[in-house]
Amino acid sequence: MKKSLIALAVMAAAGAASAQSSVTLFGIVDATISHYNAGGQHNTILTNSGYNSSRLGFRGTEDLGGGLAASFWLEAGLNNDNGSNGTTNTNNTLGGSTGGGGLTFGRRSTVSLSGGWGEVRLGRDYVPTFWNTTLFDPFGTNGVGTTIVQKAKTTTLATTLVPFATLAAPTQIAAQDPNAVRASNMIQYFLPANLGGIYGQASYAPSEVANGGRAGRFAGARLGYGAGPFNVAAAYGRTSGSGALLAGAAALQTMPDVSDWNIGGQWDFGMARLMAEYDRTKFSNGFGITPNSSLKGWLIGASVPVGPGEIRASYSREKQDVAAFSPRSSQWAVGYVHNLSKRTALYATYARLNNRGGADLAIDASLPQATAVNGGVNGNSSGLDLGIRHSF
Amino acid sequence: MKKSLIALAVMAAAGAASAQSSVTLFGIVDATISHYNAGGQHNTILTNSGYNSSRLGFRGTEDLGGGLAASFWLEAGLNNDNGSNGTTNTNNTLGGSTGGGGLTFGRRSTVSLSGGWGEVRLGRDYVPTFWNTTLFDPFGTNGVGTTIVQKAKTTTLATTLVPFATLAAPTQIAAQDPNAVRASNMIQYFLPANLGGIYGQASYAPSEVANGGRAGRFAGARLGYGAGPFNVAAAYGRTSGSGALLAGAAALQTMPDVSDWNIGGQWDFGMARLMAEYDRTKFSNGFGITPNSSLKGWLIGASVPVGPGEIRASYSREKQDVAAFSPRSSQWAVGYVHNLSKRTALYATYARLNNRGGADLAIDASLPQATAVNGGVNGNSSGLDLGIRHSF
Amino acid sequence: MKKSLIALAVMAAAGAASAQSSVTLFGIVDATISHYNAGGQHNTILTNSGYNSSRLGFRGTEDLGGGLAASFWLEAGLNNDNGSNGTTNTNNTLGGSTGGGGLTFGRRSTVSLSGGWGEVRLGRDYVPTFWNTTLFDPFGTNGVGTTIVQKAKTTTLATTLVPFATLAAPTQIAAQDPNAVRASNMIQYFLPANLGGIYGQASYAPSEVANGGRAGRFAGARLGYGAGPFNVAAAYGRTSGSGALLAGAAALQTMPDVSDWNIGGQWDFGMARLMAEYDRTKFSNGFGITPNSSLKGWLIGASVPVGPGEIRASYSREKQDVAAFSPRSSQWAVGYVHNLSKRTALYATYARLNNRGGADLAIDASLPQATAVNGGVNGNSSGLDLGIRHSF
Repeated sequence: MKKSLIALAVMAAAGAASAQSSVTLFGIVDATISHYNAGGQHNTILTNSGYNSSRLGFRGTEDLGGGLAASFWLEAGLNNDNGSNGTTNTNNTLGGSTGGGGLTFGRRSTVSLSGGWGEVRLGRDYVPTFWNTTLFDPFGTNGVGTTIVQKAKTTTLATTLVPFATLAAPTQIAAQDPNAVRASNMIQYFLPANLGGIYGQASYAPSEVANGGRAGRFAGARLGYGAGPFNVAAAYGRTSGSGALLAGAAALQTMPDVSDWNIGGQWDFGMARLMAEYDRTKFSNGFGITPNSSLKGWLIGASVPVGPGEIRASYSREKQDVAAFSPRSSQWAVGYVHNLSKRTALYATYARLNNRGGADLAIDASLPQATAVNGGVNGNSSGLDLGIRHSF
Repeated sequence: MKKSLIALAVMAAAGAASAQSSVTLFGIVDATISHYNAGGQHNTILTNSGYNSSRLGFRGTEDLGGGLAASFWLEAGLNNDNGSNGTTNTNNTLGGSTGGGGLTFGRRSTVSLSGGWGEVRLGRDYVPTFWNTTLFDPFGTNGVGTTIVQKAKTTTLATTLVPFATLAAPTQIAAQDPNAVRASNMIQYFLPANLGGIYGQASYAPSEVANGGRAGRFAGARLGYGAGPFNVAAAYGRTSGSGALLAGAAALQTMPDVSDWNIGGQWDFGMARLMAEYDRTKFSNGFGITPNSSLKGWLIGASVPVGPGEIRASYSREKQDVAAFSPRSSQWAVGYVHNLSKRTALYATYARLNNRGGADLAIDASLPQATAVNGGVNGNSSGLDLGIRHSF
Repeated sequence: MKKSLIALAVMAAAGAASAQSSVTLFGIVDATISHYNAGGQHNTILTNSGYNSSRLGFRGTEDLGGGLAASFWLEAGLNNDNGSNGTTNTNNTLGGSTGGGGLTFGRRSTVSLSGGWGEVRLGRDYVPTFWNTTLFDPFGTNGVGTTIVQKAKTTTLATTLVPFATLAAPTQIAAQDPNAVRASNMIQYFLPANLGGIYGQASYAPSEVANGGRAGRFAGARLGYGAGPFNVAAAYGRTSGSGALLAGAAALQTMPDVSDWNIGGQWDFGMARLMAEYDRTKFSNGFGITPNSSLKGWLIGASVPVGPGEIRASYSREKQDVAAFSPRSSQWAVGYVHNLSKRTALYATYARLNNRGGADLAIDASLPQATAVNGGVNGNSSGLDLGIRHSF
């Protein structure tokens, strides 16, 4: 019943008595009391999505007969601590962010046609690599325990990593991946479900910034194998950047090419589920100028069911390679989720992040207070999430 | 079942056993792969609404007894290729556009009281003239095949038509109709349905830009007759502009008075449905300064059912009269819609637009890439839409 | 049946056969034709929410067994006259307003856990004092008849009250309460319902503007007693301001500390319901600089049922204390609501507001035309609302 409370079965227009269709209203409201400690300063706020991302969505499927189905999915992010909204991105570049002034279907906005041959899906959705990052993180890329692999990719490193920012102008690039989580305008193909455990997808989005331009073009793929307790998948994604990377300070706003590949997996031993991921993200200017920079990160994690609850733990590291510098960060996280029902859970997570070599990643980069919760260059920070997740 | 999947019948509070009320969640998700060819340049993107406008809405009716009913309609536009949103306009002027940062009920936002005497409807809705333009266009003003009558009215001609822009400053006006499709703040009356085929409406919106001002005031009406295979209607609308049209370049931002009238009709021969429309839109400064400018356009079109599908074709022309110049454009369009069910369809449309006499209309003026897909002054452009429309 | 038309009963995951949960889509669409008369000028517009605030919301409850329940509430404001949207505030300061570019759950956005011990509610909601202001106003703080107590609190007095604005720069403060109606980021506790008529709540929101800052911190409480025809409640709320109040003109944008307390009550005599409220709001700079300013206001009102309708009337006064000045305003209002059903009503309200001693409050401060409908300093203004309210 989870996430599908308003689901009305209606007869499909195509006709067969067994053909059924539905439209579902679904959502999650997750509120978090977060306490941060960084550089000796404390901060307590009410925020959201510490366990699962708050959302409101509408989705449905129509059985077209003969194994064919059409479906849609519109899902918006919610900041339920204050009633404001998540954003989207119209063209997959750093400058394409929009929405957030109201309910925005930036989490997913797709229409699909599927059959025995697989699924064609059109619109905004997760990119292939993000599936590995979030599925093989015991904290699911939510809250203070989010793998540092993800925290590094969604931070503008050129400004937060001091050594990077002090390089000579020609090599400065804004090292952030605009499509680290999702991309818009995608034409995707998914393998069907009956391939003996093999699953996969290919995803492509054209550049939509200007006629003939390349900025924001995205291409990626994912291939995996899951059977019984075992699951492993590898994924790749590449976003084309824009030109003009050379001209002084303003060039920091220009987007580099970003390529990302990762591999992750898990083994469910019953009494515990172990998981691991390795990720490499490379930022290059696409014009033969060196040095480029890259992020290399990995995570090991575990999830242990305990009665109606679950203990979660992870350790993750991230290192940046850029010229003679190598800023690096590490993080460990531990938490407990207590399920009051399938829909409602209470949770607590504690995480501690250490920076070395010039790094200054924050324990929660998504907050307006991020600069205040990173402990400074080579500083340490910690965070504690206490919250309630309610889904419908 | 189309467009009304979540419709729960509830007993009306007023009491009679047969009196029923409902609230409906409805929507359309239409994704389009569009290819443009203009001035030798090609461009392919994922966009939306190539066949029907993507939307999400809530509407309902309450039976009040004695033939009286109250109803509401809240309908928002969706850009489902990237999760962003349509806009609205708070005061019916060129400067009143707002929303679009999130779900915005800019397509329709009304509350109504109706009975045997007709319907009073309050709020934002289509203007009377748009009904003729969209109903008597086989492409329904969606996608590359949209009648050129509509494309011209929603383009700021003062900037896209070169001869117009080079006129002396006193006669320059921003020749765009802010209410070419919808108007806000309307008080509308609709004739009841039982008048032997006669239908009609009167629509009025006060100016809301300033105390005592006139800018954004709208008045319009529509009268039609439909019986059996025959349907014809005439409509008129007038938007009052703002003052200060004389002062140099800035005056281009000032809104002229806009009046629009049209007549359209169709005859359904069974094997084909033929339709035609004539439209005249006049931009005047309201202060006796000549020359004013006007748009004159017409369309002929046909829709031919073929098994579960439909072939569509149209030819439309548009001419601008301004001083000694007469920029003019023409367009033909052909397409096929294949219905997989009543809710889901695949479609393809091809259209080609030619500009002469200084015109530079674009094959799709709604795109950010519009300036790149018009082929330039006197240039030609073409577009191909391939897509899927799914409604719920 | 009011406000809960889409409510699907589903079995709770927790198990007991009697345990039921629901998700509800609800809303109000209220359209108002408003006529204003101020300083000899007339203005008629179509606006919204003259009787009840237009809204669209989603809410639900899950029975967790053992008397425990989880619930959520997401409610957005609608401007249904033009399809635009209400706003919210991310950090409870004058600078934290956001949203309004689309559907924004700024009216309420909460998740709760409740049991025999009461309710813990997290997120954006009404502040305690607003409950007294709106419940004990026969016009419910909607439309031209809204108590002048509320009109004064939601107006930036530093600009509308001339004497205040002409004080020396160091003592000028922007005397507006950002949390006069709601606050975000709140952690609230509500007493359970079974305390013999006693009810109450405590509400706290941390400052979220910067690490260690105090601006936007909110704390409040409400305690009441209701039994049979009698109901009385007192409430308090305090918002912490920001620093730097001294530096010239820019300091006008800085937020003072705001404290608000009020007491209200009603007695339902059957043939009439009488109500009264007293409210005192104090703006202080928190740094010992004098003079501070305060608002003192009161209301008496009555509601008289008449067949299927209701006659409403109120008289309210507001006085500002600031240095040697004492701007003051008074207002009387009378109206009639005709219920066509429990969901649909027609209404008319007339109100007249008088300013003295330098006051220039407007008959409807929520309008863009507000400056045009206040009749100027010491001026009088009146307003007439005619409308329809439809809920679902």
